[in-house]
Amino acid sequence: MTPLFPNPDDQRLTEAVAGIDHTGAPVEIRVPVERALTLYLNAQEIVTMMTINDYPEYLALGYLLNQNMLKPTDVVTEVEYDDDLQVVVVRTEHGTNFEQKLKKKTLTSGCAQGTAFGDLMESIEDIELPQTPLRTSWIYQMTHEINTKPSLYLTAGAIHGCVLCKEGTPICYMEDVGRHNAVDKIAGWMFRHGVSAADKIFYTTGRLTSEMVIKTVRMGIPILVSRSGFTSWGVDLARQAGLVLIGRAKGKRFIALAGAERLVFDQDLAYVKDDAMGARRKAAQDD
Amino acid sequence: MTPLFPNPDDQRLTEAVAGIDHTGAPVEIRVPVERALTLYLNAQEIVTMMTINDYPEYLALGYLLNQNMLKPTDVVTEVEYDDDLQVVVVRTEHGTNFEQKLKKKTLTSGCAQGTAFGDLMESIEDIELPQTPLRTSWIYQMTHEINTKPSLYLTAGAIHGCVLCKEGTPICYMEDVGRHNAVDKIAGWMFRHGVSAADKIFYTTGRLTSEMVIKTVRMGIPILVSRSGFTSWGVDLARQAGLVLIGRAKGKRFIALAGAERLVFDQDLAYVKDDAMGARRKAAQDD
Repeated sequence: MTPLFPNPDDQRLTEAVAGIDHTGAPVEIRVPVERALTLYLNAQEIVTMMTINDYPEYLALGYLLNQNMLKPTDVVTEVEYDDDLQVVVVRTEHGTNFEQKLKKKTLTSGCAQGTAFGDLMESIEDIELPQTPLRTSWIYQMTHEINTKPSLYLTAGAIHGCVLCKEGTPICYMEDVGRHNAVDKIAGWMFRHGVSAADKIFYTTGRLTSEMVIKTVRMGIPILVSRSGFTSWGVDLARQAGLVLIGRAKGKRFIALAGAERLVFDQDLAYVKDDAMGARRKAAQDD
Repeated sequence: MTPLFPNPDDQRLTEAVAGIDHTGAPVEIRVPVERALTLYLNAQEIVTMMTINDYPEYLALGYLLNQNMLKPTDVVTEVEYDDDLQVVVVRTEHGTNFEQKLKKKTLTSGCAQGTAFGDLMESIEDIELPQTPLRTSWIYQMTHEINTKPSLYLTAGAIHGCVLCKEGTPICYMEDVGRHNAVDKIAGWMFRHGVSAADKIFYTTGRLTSEMVIKTVRMGIPILVSRSGFTSWGVDLARQAGLVLIGRAKGKRFIALAGAERLVFDQDLAYVKDDAMGARRKAAQDD
């Protein structure tokens, strides 16, 4: 399939807003749009998400896959998106048992998030990740390419990015106002195009929390890299699952807190630039 | 009441983790802990949250208030926290009708988030915020104090912060792995101590999304400031609600996209330092 990169020139994804700056002078800046998208699985309403809504189909599929409501082996017969209603419907061949699951969930935890999280933990217990090595030259190549590629982030800020890479080369770069949406869109893109996970690296601008680690493991991707920091449970889960976990990757620097034995130090650091582009990312405002 | 600030020396909130750095040398860094906390309202299980769990009582009360499950006028008879079970129970005098609400929610939206969001939108429609002015000197004073105060952020990174200020002075500074938890803990603290909102300023390290604006308006706070950027819906809602919305506040710079007419430019910019401390925050890793 064709690689997929952000399109900051798409006028639907950002909006010009007028205000004033610190000197009192009028300014106009571009900010990312935020839209409500409601997802149905067959006849069941599942969730309403806040998204830039550039890829409702990938977001819908990826959300269902990452929530364990859709199995990679399920046959999806149709994904229907209604632009007026801001609704996306995923239809499967054999139906799903999610109606029943929801009922159980309501009984046990009310607002669903509790049980949903428990389910997700279970869903990664049996996954065995391939022991793919990670060359340090790939880390530097991919972070350089990601930081210099045109993006909504550089245009409008206030957005999270996730990038699927093969070795050091980005092949799918998604952005969204919700960082989990960006992950889910990549999961949906991989599902739709039958992209294998075993030889891939996942990059996120977000923090390496338990939820981010769980999603990466569920997607079957053996390596997770971020320019942000770690939480303790994220590290624990990564170690249990056999995930290579790299954080604080900026310029020359990074820290590996899981799977360090799979690193291959093939990069001469004298040829790696310091964090000039990282600073540019930062200067464009974020979080 | 006494002002409340982060306690980065509290050993329960961070954990030392060993790994290797980009040169292959062993390193040990501190990372924030992430714990599951399950919240009950009377007999009803509501949600399981991932939190650093420093203030389960404030988090529980603030979550319920910000989700509109508890009214500011409700009488809370007890907040019981069980450290072993990681459960917090909020009991109210007259019971709550949330059991019924949950049932309705389940019928209409399954996973609850959809209807919950709709409810929140409605819940801010009738709120009239006071037209409190904002002196620019307060912005510079508070961001300087926030950036230089010892915090988990500076110690361990990967954490969000929210700060309630009176004029330029921080009076309650909360941090959490989930940025909405940090907001909710401040709401709970204000509720517990009867702190008025009308003369306060709310500062967040996170982005100015619709959700952040809704929570600030629900708390009755008339001014929201962030060092991060905006989303378009966040700006729209702030304008509708009469909230002063300031983003990208770093060093001398900021941008006002709502309520700019309430700004009073009383600060001589020649005396404001550039973003040295902001850079320090960034260098400590985040997002």
